[in-house]
Order: sequence, then C-alpha cells, then structure tokens
Amino acid sequence: MAESPTLKRKREKKEGENGTAESRKEGTTATGFPLADLSVRKVLRESARDKTIFLHGQVNSASGDGTDAVVILEKTPFREENISELLKKHTKLQLQMSNDIYSTYHLYLPPELNEIKTTVVYPATEKHLQKYLRREVYLIQETGADYETITLPFIESQSFSIQWVYNILEKKAEADRIIYENPDPTDGFVLIPDLKWDRKQLDDLYLIAICHCRGIKSLRDLTAEHLPLLKNISKEGKEAIVKRFGVSGAQLRVYLHYQPSYYHLHVHFTALSYDAPGSSVERAHLLSDVIDNLELDSGYYRKRTLTFALRADEPLLKKFQEAGRV
Amino acid sequence: MAESPTLKRKREKKEGENGTAESRKEGTTATGFPLADLSVRKVLRESARDKTIFLHGQVNSASGDGTDAVVILEKTPFREENISELLKKHTKLQLQMSNDIYSTYHLYLPPELNEIKTTVVYPATEKHLQKYLRREVYLIQETGADYETITLPFIESQSFSIQWVYNILEKKAEADRIIYENPDPTDGFVLIPDLKWDRKQLDDLYLIAICHCRGIKSLRDLTAEHLPLLKNISKEGKEAIVKRFGVSGAQLRVYLHYQPSYYHLHVHFTALSYDAPGSSVERAHLLSDVIDNLELDSGYYRKRTLTFALRADEPLLKKFQEAGRV
Repeated sequence: MAESPTLKRKREKKEGENGTAESRKEGTTATGFPLADLSVRKVLRESARDKTIFLHGQVNSASGDGTDAVVILEKTPFREENISELLKKHTKLQLQMSNDIYSTYHLYLPPELNEIKTTVVYPATEKHLQKYLRREVYLIQETGADYETITLPFIESQSFSIQWVYNILEKKAEADRIIYENPDPTDGFVLIPDLKWDRKQLDDLYLIAICHCRGIKSLRDLTAEHLPLLKNISKEGKEAIVKRFGVSGAQLRVYLHYQPSYYHLHVHFTALSYDAPGSSVERAHLLSDVIDNLELDSGYYRKRTLTFALRADEPLLKKFQEAGRV
Repeated sequence: MAESPTLKRKREKKEGENGTAESRKEGTTATGFPLADLSVRKVLRESARDKTIFLHGQVNSASGDGTDAVVILEKTPFREENISELLKKHTKLQLQMSNDIYSTYHLYLPPELNEIKTTVVYPATEKHLQKYLRREVYLIQETGADYETITLPFIESQSFSIQWVYNILEKKAEADRIIYENPDPTDGFVLIPDLKWDRKQLDDLYLIAICHCRGIKSLRDLTAEHLPLLKNISKEGKEAIVKRFGVSGAQLRVYLHYQPSYYHLHVHFTALSYDAPGSSVERAHLLSDVIDNLELDSGYYRKRTLTFALRADEPLLKKFQEAGRV
C-alpha cells in the first residue's frame, strides 16, 4: 500500500527531527516519544502466552496532532542475575490460593526490577497498522510458476522501502550494534542483534545476518552460485556468536524465512531452546537444508513448491485468490 | 525418586502447620511464604518467550531452616482494560535505540500495574526439583550413514512399546474417538484426535493420522513406494477434518516429526493459527514437502542429512557423543 503524501511528508519531517535521536547512544535517559499523550484507538493483537500487546494509538500532544503510532509492549524475560535482588526487594506478596504444599500469589516489584520493552513505530502508516493487526491465516502452495506469474510481479509492483537495511550495511545507523562483519561485497554480510532481542539474557538470543550483496530478494533467488555466501554466513556467524556470547553452533537454530518480511536476503540465528516466533515449519527453512538442497540441485528453489502462510489481509493472498490458486 | 524419610517428615509437619493457610480465602493480604528469606540455589528452567522462571530455593528463616521450595515466577499478560492507565501512569520511559521511524525503549510502571504471578511448592521434594529441571538441548546433523550406524541400532536396542498404537489400529482402545478410517492395510490409516487436544475449541485443533502398515519407523524409511499412503493421508485427512470440524485444508499444518516420539509412522494435523509444540523447523517436516521430495528422488530421506534437537538427558545424544558426532 502506498503512503499518503501527507504521511510521507510527516515521516520525512520526523526523520529530519530524529537526526539527534539516531546519534544517541543506548541507555540515555531521553524519552523521545510522548507516551503519556497517546490515545489508544485499537488493540491490534495480543498474546497471553508471549505477554505482548500491539496498540494502534494517536499522539495528541501539540507536536503530534493526531499522528498514528504503533506501540508494542512486551514484558521482559527474568534475568538470573537479578533474581535474588528481586525476591528481597519486592514491595508486596499477596496470597491468592493455597492448597496443601501448593500456593499462588501476586507479587509486586519496584519498577526498575520489572521493566517493559517498548517498541514504537512513529509516525505509522496504514501499512504498519495492517501489518500488526491479527487476521485469519491461509496456507499457500506456491509452485515455481506461481512465483514467476503471481509473487514476483507483486513484489516488483510494491515499493517496499529497505532503506533501513542499507543504513545498517553502510554504517549510517546501528553501526555500534554490529557484532561481526565480512566486508566482501559478494560473499560478505553483517551480523547484528535483531530488534526483538534486548541482549540482556541469552535465552532468547536472536541475531540477523544481512548479506552485503543487493538484489537477492529471497530463498527463491538462491542458486549454487550463492553457496560461498551461505557457507560464510553459517560458519562465520556461528563463530562470531560463540566468541561474543558463548553460545555454540549446536545450540543455534539458523534459518531463512519464506516469505521474508523484507526482500533483501537475511538469515536468522536464534537460541535453539528459544521457541522463537517465525521458527515454525511453514515459514522457516534451515540454512543447512538450503545449502544441501542447492548442492543437490542449483535450481532447487527456483522450481520447488514452497509452502507459506498468508494473513487474510495480505495483498499477496488476494493475488493468489484472483489467480484461482487458493 | 523416593522421598527421603527426613523430607517426608518435614513435609507432613509442614502440611499440619499449613492448616490455617488452606482455609484462607482468595485475595487476602497475608503473605504465607517468607519470599525475602529464600536463598536461590538453582534456576531449574526459564523461558524467555513465556517470561517465566522456575527456581529451586531454600527457606532460611527461623521456621524454614533450609527447607527446599520451588518458586515459579511468571509475568502476567497485558489486560486491555488497564492499558490506558498504564500508559498514563508510567514512571519512566528510557530511550534505547532509534533508527528511522522505529525506536525502542525501557518502560517502567508502578508495581500495582505490573504484577507477577507466583506459584510456590513448599516444602518441595527431590521429585519436584527434577520435574521442573530443564536440560540443555543440542542440534544433531544426522547423515544417512549416522542413521545406519548410530540411530537405527539405538532404536532397535530399545524396546519402545507401541502396543497402544496397535490397540487403536485394532479398535481395542479409543475406538469411539476415531474420526476417519481408510482400512486398506498398505495405504490406509486411522485419524484420531491427539490426547493434547481437549476438542473444546478449534484454536488448538490437533489430530494424528496413524498408518495401518507396520514397520515404517519414521521419515527415514519412506520411499516412493509410500507415496499412495502419504497422498491418502493428506487428501482424506483434510477432507475428514473439514467435514467434521469445518476447518479447511488451507488452515491446517500437516507434518511429520523427526525424531518422532514413537517409531510407527504417523502424521500431525494442527490448526495453522495454533503455535503447536513440535511444529518448529528443527523437528517438523511438512507432508507436502515430503511428498515432493520423494517424487524428486525416491531415496531422498535415506541419504539426506536430517537435523533435530536432543535434550542432554536423552540416551540417543550419548550415542552421538560416543561416535564423536556432536
């Protein structure tokens, strides 16, 4: 969906204003977003299991004048090093139920021991709001021919902005977050923590390798010529992670998404013990399997039927429906 | 593990003392458990995704004198009706990262808007501690040769009982639960709800197709000769589920596990919207992919390297370690 000119201008203005914010270091005390002035318009999605909630809000402060924002709140995992302090410093323990040796309580903690991870998309476009809204999902079986006649024309018709990816590759943003880089323009990549990971505990370790080479949209574009790149990502990515975080390759799940959320080739590294969102079989493809399949047949991912899920509101689903393929 | 006489005596004593606690109503303000006096001995398990942590602690107060306890802390889901208050009353919003329209923050809330669910098992026995203890998991890359020399001999050396499977196939048990049957001894199967599904709601729909043919241990044994069986399971399984439960094939995830939890071929059908345990990429293989791969190459699953995770306490991991393959 194209951005409206108004929103686009606001966004450009915002980017200008945010010049200072971008150069801020992690851990400053500036707020940068008027959270108390946010009116909640709609709960886009929530997960009781993950303890997350996705909000569509509008900023009603003098500077915001009703601009849309997406605010994602997520309770943070417990950190082992904090536990003793947390137990000692609790403000209240309220008995809820007791039966034999089992009992349950409400426990209340000082704010600084119980923070909430907050992600803001501001200003948000209609596309962002749609992206986070929960819908029914449908499984697509995309043949090689479907890709050529339905998916590829769709991707090319959309002007998905991946400027933020280029900002990372060119060190214009998040340069201080880079964990490892192989600078080769063809077979190199940048390894960076995913925004979903706050780096405070290893349990939900989540990094992304983004290849330097431009124009590899997804798994579908991969052939045997990309084997050196993929092998570098696998080998050097694991080495960098064990070196920096002490987590070995045998404890990592390394995979690509199809469909990806942006069409510039990237590989996910998550802790094996972490039940990461997007690691289920209808979306994730193990990098080791991808390498094996390309070695078996360079055209494997060009020809192969690939299965993925699409939400009811995704424009690509409509294209498959129009083609009579769902 | 049997309880030690000492622990058993302590437990009986404790149960007597807790008589008053048992009769308490929900929502009283009494604490009932000396949380601030708990020394953490070990983190038994934690989940970054679920925001839970399981602790083994000892109570060192005058009354507790080193008695073991299990304390489970779980962050609570957001409640829609609280959200506006929570945004207004936050105590601090600390910028962490900013890039383009995306930014992340640490948000701090008053304790009463951010409670922790706490479950206590006290006194806890060794059995409770073992029950909650998480083991490390390791990724195995099993080549075709590894299967022949390590996994297959291991499977054959174990006398895994699958009598309960034969009971279902022979209608000696659970006959009233069968949703559909194709009685062909070679290409037929029985479709039955999984025990994990209580059939009360469709959100976590979970059925299993169990093939009539005996001797197909897993994915590894499949060749092109099994294509008629696999296609029957795919087609007839989906038809039976839409007929009985109104859930269409496009809203089902249909897959095999490798390693499976029992070595008689079976296929899982789960609701696509349900984040089913065991549906992640390192364990699940989509039935549609399995069929495609066997049509491509009848020996695909005999030769192919298959990736799966094993917990540190699983005997098969030890076999891979002894063979120098981990």
